[in-house]
Amino acid sequence: MQFTAGQIAALINGRVEGNASSVVDSFGKIEEATPSQLCFLSNPKYEDYLYTTKAAIIIVNESQELKQPVQPTLIRVIDAYTAFATLLHKYQQMATQQLSGIEQPSFIHASAVLGSNVYLGAFAYISEQCTIGNNVKIFPGVYIGTNVTLGENTILMPGVKIYADCIIGKNVTIHSGTVVGGDGFGFAPQPDGTYQKIPQIGNVIIEDFVEIGSNSTIDRATVGSTIIKAGAKLDNLIQIAHNAEIGNNTVIAAQSGVSGSTKIGNNVLIGGQAGIVGHIQIADGTKINAQSGVSKSVKTPNTVITGSPAFDYTSALRSQAVSRNLPELEKRVAELEKLVQQLLQEKLV
Amino acid sequence: MQFTAGQIAALINGRVEGNASSVVDSFGKIEEATPSQLCFLSNPKYEDYLYTTKAAIIIVNESQELKQPVQPTLIRVIDAYTAFATLLHKYQQMATQQLSGIEQPSFIHASAVLGSNVYLGAFAYISEQCTIGNNVKIFPGVYIGTNVTLGENTILMPGVKIYADCIIGKNVTIHSGTVVGGDGFGFAPQPDGTYQKIPQIGNVIIEDFVEIGSNSTIDRATVGSTIIKAGAKLDNLIQIAHNAEIGNNTVIAAQSGVSGSTKIGNNVLIGGQAGIVGHIQIADGTKINAQSGVSKSVKTPNTVITGSPAFDYTSALRSQAVSRNLPELEKRVAELEKLVQQLLQEKLV
Amino acid sequence: MQFTAGQIAALINGRVEGNASSVVDSFGKIEEATPSQLCFLSNPKYEDYLYTTKAAIIIVNESQELKQPVQPTLIRVIDAYTAFATLLHKYQQMATQQLSGIEQPSFIHASAVLGSNVYLGAFAYISEQCTIGNNVKIFPGVYIGTNVTLGENTILMPGVKIYADCIIGKNVTIHSGTVVGGDGFGFAPQPDGTYQKIPQIGNVIIEDFVEIGSNSTIDRATVGSTIIKAGAKLDNLIQIAHNAEIGNNTVIAAQSGVSGSTKIGNNVLIGGQAGIVGHIQIADGTKINAQSGVSKSVKTPNTVITGSPAFDYTSALRSQAVSRNLPELEKRVAELEKLVQQLLQEKLV
Repeated sequence: MQFTAGQIAALINGRVEGNASSVVDSFGKIEEATPSQLCFLSNPKYEDYLYTTKAAIIIVNESQELKQPVQPTLIRVIDAYTAFATLLHKYQQMATQQLSGIEQPSFIHASAVLGSNVYLGAFAYISEQCTIGNNVKIFPGVYIGTNVTLGENTILMPGVKIYADCIIGKNVTIHSGTVVGGDGFGFAPQPDGTYQKIPQIGNVIIEDFVEIGSNSTIDRATVGSTIIKAGAKLDNLIQIAHNAEIGNNTVIAAQSGVSGSTKIGNNVLIGGQAGIVGHIQIADGTKINAQSGVSKSVKTPNTVITGSPAFDYTSALRSQAVSRNLPELEKRVAELEKLVQQLLQEKLV
Repeated sequence: MQFTAGQIAALINGRVEGNASSVVDSFGKIEEATPSQLCFLSNPKYEDYLYTTKAAIIIVNESQELKQPVQPTLIRVIDAYTAFATLLHKYQQMATQQLSGIEQPSFIHASAVLGSNVYLGAFAYISEQCTIGNNVKIFPGVYIGTNVTLGENTILMPGVKIYADCIIGKNVTIHSGTVVGGDGFGFAPQPDGTYQKIPQIGNVIIEDFVEIGSNSTIDRATVGSTIIKAGAKLDNLIQIAHNAEIGNNTVIAAQSGVSGSTKIGNNVLIGGQAGIVGHIQIADGTKINAQSGVSKSVKTPNTVITGSPAFDYTSALRSQAVSRNLPELEKRVAELEKLVQQLLQEKLV
Repeated sequence: MQFTAGQIAALINGRVEGNASSVVDSFGKIEEATPSQLCFLSNPKYEDYLYTTKAAIIIVNESQELKQPVQPTLIRVIDAYTAFATLLHKYQQMATQQLSGIEQPSFIHASAVLGSNVYLGAFAYISEQCTIGNNVKIFPGVYIGTNVTLGENTILMPGVKIYADCIIGKNVTIHSGTVVGGDGFGFAPQPDGTYQKIPQIGNVIIEDFVEIGSNSTIDRATVGSTIIKAGAKLDNLIQIAHNAEIGNNTVIAAQSGVSGSTKIGNNVLIGGQAGIVGHIQIADGTKINAQSGVSKSVKTPNTVITGSPAFDYTSALRSQAVSRNLPELEKRVAELEKLVQQLLQEKLV
């Protein structure tokens, strides 16, 4: 898609300074831009690039002063960074909304109900009794099991798999390869040492405005639902086990895992590669550092924890500091032992 | 599928109390059930739900006494929990067995041999010289490489990929996105700092009754076989490297990794996010805690280990306890140093 | 494919001893080989297998002496192990080069440009404006987004997904299920506790001779590029976040993660399940042990680090040793306290 400086200024309430019919077709960094790109300058530290950039259009702050004439068309706004981000959003929404229609070959069961302006990529598969909301975009190779509901504006990137009976809200984005609704990991030990599978007949509910990264796995509940609440953001390669609940606006970084039946509160932040055991509660606003291993419930909101097993951040840091000096501490104890022995010897004399 | 109380009682050797023609079409929790659902009551603590539930049919223990009349039809059995689990199993087997036929478009090489009652979903791909057993269910988007064998009753969920020459046993279930037989990670360093790939010409053997979760990766052997033995259960996002062996009925929780050529014994339990180095042996019945890092062979059966590097559970717990009190210990040493200095000073006087 | 001893000897500059028309169709281990297999003997320790193996052809060192007549045809070379590896390479290249043609159904946008001798498996999807080099092999179910470039001889195994605008070099191999170019994980916190997505408009560049394992995730940059430099080798289930850079010939083992904007130098070795925080630099030749958590830049080349948080390997080992003896150290301190109290008491007397 191509846009003129005038069109862009209209989208972000900006004021054009220079040629309003300059045309761009993509976004770039000011220091590397090509002549068909749009950039922004927010940090005055980088002002010099204004005079050397090859970009056709630059979004700058109203307050930006110029030491010399500039080549590109400027669009002046109150806050260049925010205006640029807003523009990107609008651009991506437009690009996504343009996607429409059913590519062939694809597989849609006769009983599935599709809303308006749906995109279905080739090799996508929709099972019986599915309900697909308006403006849903289903990329190539996606699999949707029986009786799944997808809310409007939801986007499933290539190769996402949704097992039967799961419910996905509105404005959800799920990235490639993520599996929603796989069987929870439940096996009952038998007297002969083998394991008997415990059927997993629950589902997964993903509420509105959730985003999930690539190749993550969200298991269905044994009975009832595994729930990812509205606004939660999950990164790549994350494991959410059966019957877990992830609170509103909770953010989980890549490669972390939440075990079965654990309830994570709202606005929790979980670093990468952290693990949380099953059947515990994590209070709202808890911060869990990367690689932590959380083995107990966190009851006080806004607690910061770290380590494996995880405990209070400040005392963990102190322990770590001493821990690194352990060989030194050991030497001090040995020295003390020698001195005390001397004192004891001398006393005997 | 719909079932009457009479049909269900026959399946689980139960006795109907109430209307034998009550009909259900799904399973629920007693406290949340809708009027077309079947539930069970096992724990007497929840008896009160018997009198308030909306469920049509409830499986209860023979021993369950009633304080007042109940609305739903009861099915009395010796052990309600086990009967419910058995029923779920039978139900899921029936549902799976009903799946049959070759959906279009799919890709089957002319040289592939398919057993009876096979289901092949759309966009599934079967390469040359494959042998697919009776009652195998291959969901949409599965890829099966050249010369792969699948034993009877095996289920491959959507998007599973099996590389060439792998052998999958009977009654195996593999969940979405899991990759079986990808190249082992072997590269020989060259004098110029680059790496030369070591061809990986072995395969993966997965024995009977194995279940593997979603998005796991089981690499093929360099030469010979990577083996997952009968009855082993692997969760999601697990890495099994080339030439590893996983013993019978061994259970591995999510996000754990087993490095190359390591042999894990039978009935081992491995917690989530654990890592095991290459070329070691883990004795039968070993328990490895979550997030452990196992760097040495475990030779004594039924050992419990924890930590990274992992060692004996009891002493690890003791070390952890002292470890948390390290700043305190450091203070005690400093105090001792002061006192001993005093004593030494005084002695000099 | 079948080969005679004569053909094989020509490929590896060997000398046939025995029947030059012996035929093999696969590779095996000398101790387990079937009569249609080729093996090698490099380690004299295993010489006895020469006289008992069922293999048809064996590659041996020129220097190998025979104590008795052998059944198989021998091919003598200077270094049997290297010759065998070379042969495997050539065999796999031949097998891959034979793959050619466009299987149906597949999806190729009219604007995509395909080189010569390309293989495109069924259910693969190529979006608009893609450029596919000569000899590229795209297996079934691969998804390639808009404006992607694939260099010659590159191989994408089944179910790989490449998002829009990514650039993949020559001689790259990517294994099944790996996702290249998924959105970086960037969300700006809002005053009401929700998060606003930061559009990720950069791409991923994968340079020549890179190999990536199965089910890994390489996120696109926010702006600019996430870069995997030439010759890097990544294992399975690895996370590379937005704007990260992985240096030439750097090797990363399974389940490790590199956070956003971190730059890893050349010829770095990263063990399995390691994590590296964002916005740091790791010097060339650094060795990071398995399960390490790297929280600070490593500035000195060839440093070895371990632990979480990671620090210098030697002092980490020393701390670990003391750490295991912590309960013992605590006892020694308690004993000292008792003795010093005694001394103080006696002094008072």
